[in-house]
Amino acid sequence: MKNVAVIGLGLIGGSLAVDIKKAFDCTIVGIDASEVNAKRALEIGFIDEIGTLKNVKQVDVVVIATPVNTIGSISNEVLDLIGDDTLVFDAGSVKGSICSSIAKHKNRKNYLAAHPIAGTEYSGPNAAISDLFRGKVNIICELEKTDRKIANKAFEIFDALGMEYKYMSAVEHDRHIAYVSHLSHVSSFMLGKTVLEIEKDEQNIFDMAGSGFESTVRLAKSAASTWTPIFTENKKNLLSSLEQYIKNLNEFKTYIEEENTNELNRIMTETNHLREILNNKI
Amino acid sequence: MKNVAVIGLGLIGGSLAVDIKKAFDCTIVGIDASEVNAKRALEIGFIDEIGTLKNVKQVDVVVIATPVNTIGSISNEVLDLIGDDTLVFDAGSVKGSICSSIAKHKNRKNYLAAHPIAGTEYSGPNAAISDLFRGKVNIICELEKTDRKIANKAFEIFDALGMEYKYMSAVEHDRHIAYVSHLSHVSSFMLGKTVLEIEKDEQNIFDMAGSGFESTVRLAKSAASTWTPIFTENKKNLLSSLEQYIKNLNEFKTYIEEENTNELNRIMTETNHLREILNNKI
Repeated sequence: MKNVAVIGLGLIGGSLAVDIKKAFDCTIVGIDASEVNAKRALEIGFIDEIGTLKNVKQVDVVVIATPVNTIGSISNEVLDLIGDDTLVFDAGSVKGSICSSIAKHKNRKNYLAAHPIAGTEYSGPNAAISDLFRGKVNIICELEKTDRKIANKAFEIFDALGMEYKYMSAVEHDRHIAYVSHLSHVSSFMLGKTVLEIEKDEQNIFDMAGSGFESTVRLAKSAASTWTPIFTENKKNLLSSLEQYIKNLNEFKTYIEEENTNELNRIMTETNHLREILNNKI
Repeated sequence: MKNVAVIGLGLIGGSLAVDIKKAFDCTIVGIDASEVNAKRALEIGFIDEIGTLKNVKQVDVVVIATPVNTIGSISNEVLDLIGDDTLVFDAGSVKGSICSSIAKHKNRKNYLAAHPIAGTEYSGPNAAISDLFRGKVNIICELEKTDRKIANKAFEIFDALGMEYKYMSAVEHDRHIAYVSHLSHVSSFMLGKTVLEIEKDEQNIFDMAGSGFESTVRLAKSAASTWTPIFTENKKNLLSSLEQYIKNLNEFKTYIEEENTNELNRIMTETNHLREILNNKI
């Protein structure tokens, strides 16, 4: 593995580039729709040169980490251009639409649909950090559609970055991730919006943020340009989870109105089960 | 200050005891409705003896850190018993009901209504930690109703623990804290409930928690016994904030349904303003 192309030089693409560069003796060509981002990536040093899509003809590995609504078409263009042994993988947070769009491409076997579950609330090349993926779960979808030799090349990279694995269909992935990740982002953004609307004195927000607000609203710092396409691409699953969430909020609201302390206690005590799930690996 | 009584030996009362003991050469008598908690506090060592309410007759300072629905009546009992120079302060997360219930007590001037904005998602004596309050904001309500000499005794303690201050009326406090703290807890509990309902395979929750879920749902690990009374005591304000939150969620849901990317982008970009508020002190 001598030459790698990374398309999309933000938090995920940048962090992948940082660690791939560190683990392998390779040259990385960076490709980004934003010239500013590409120059910044070169300046930081996690890419060796700035390129265009045509560069993928000469590389061993292509990493696609652009906004999810662009991954389908970029993947098809990339698969048109690559050599026989080139590995292409993406890191998108929605997998169904991407997998469908490449399903019939003659080079589908060169593609691995992946979703490394890692991130921060920051974005752009400056957000790229080392070791973002160590110990994190990488969800691999439709592994059976990837050539085994090509897939092994991907696992060589993921192993070097310290990832763990989980395998599922793209449909299953999108359903689970709607609840566990996408809904968290919506709830956090709306919490932030609600507090900003009412609290005209921003000093109050800052002073009281230690009361639990800060961690709950962390995701509301995330980039709109990343999350708008995720929400629309995973619309069906996200809407189901949002409906359920709003239903639960309305029910809880009724119990508060009624001062039904038994039900409030019961619901919160049951939800406390998350302690065991999150604090200890099952 | 030689003798201190701490009533309520959980996360907040326990952490206050740990630091007061460290900062002052004093004896702490611990009082708790649960014998198990009191014994555990003695075992850990942040109290010197287990007592009953009667012990407040002999102390210089009384700290009340019990569930918010009990603070009003306990405060009245304590104010009945204390000496002329004794300071009594509470650390409750709702201030209106507490301040009303002691408003006409002849020893009101011995009482300081405080709310140190600090905590973790853990509870009970085992959750008591040192330095929980360093650099955190302590909201002081109705300071004008506390005797100046008595209040100074409180500030001597709070200063030693490293706290900063903010002053407001009990009514203002409860309105602000409903949005910035209590609503965060409801949104987090309901997110946890929603995900637990749909994700029967708990391993999935664990594996995907790195995707943002873990921090957003942290508060859902908090004790139901603490939060049920907070929600009902601050019912009016919390219901207003919840209504606004649900309204915002429904609006956002409509924009996702319509794939109105302009509005989704606009709302999230505006909410990103929280970055500046939370990352830099204004």
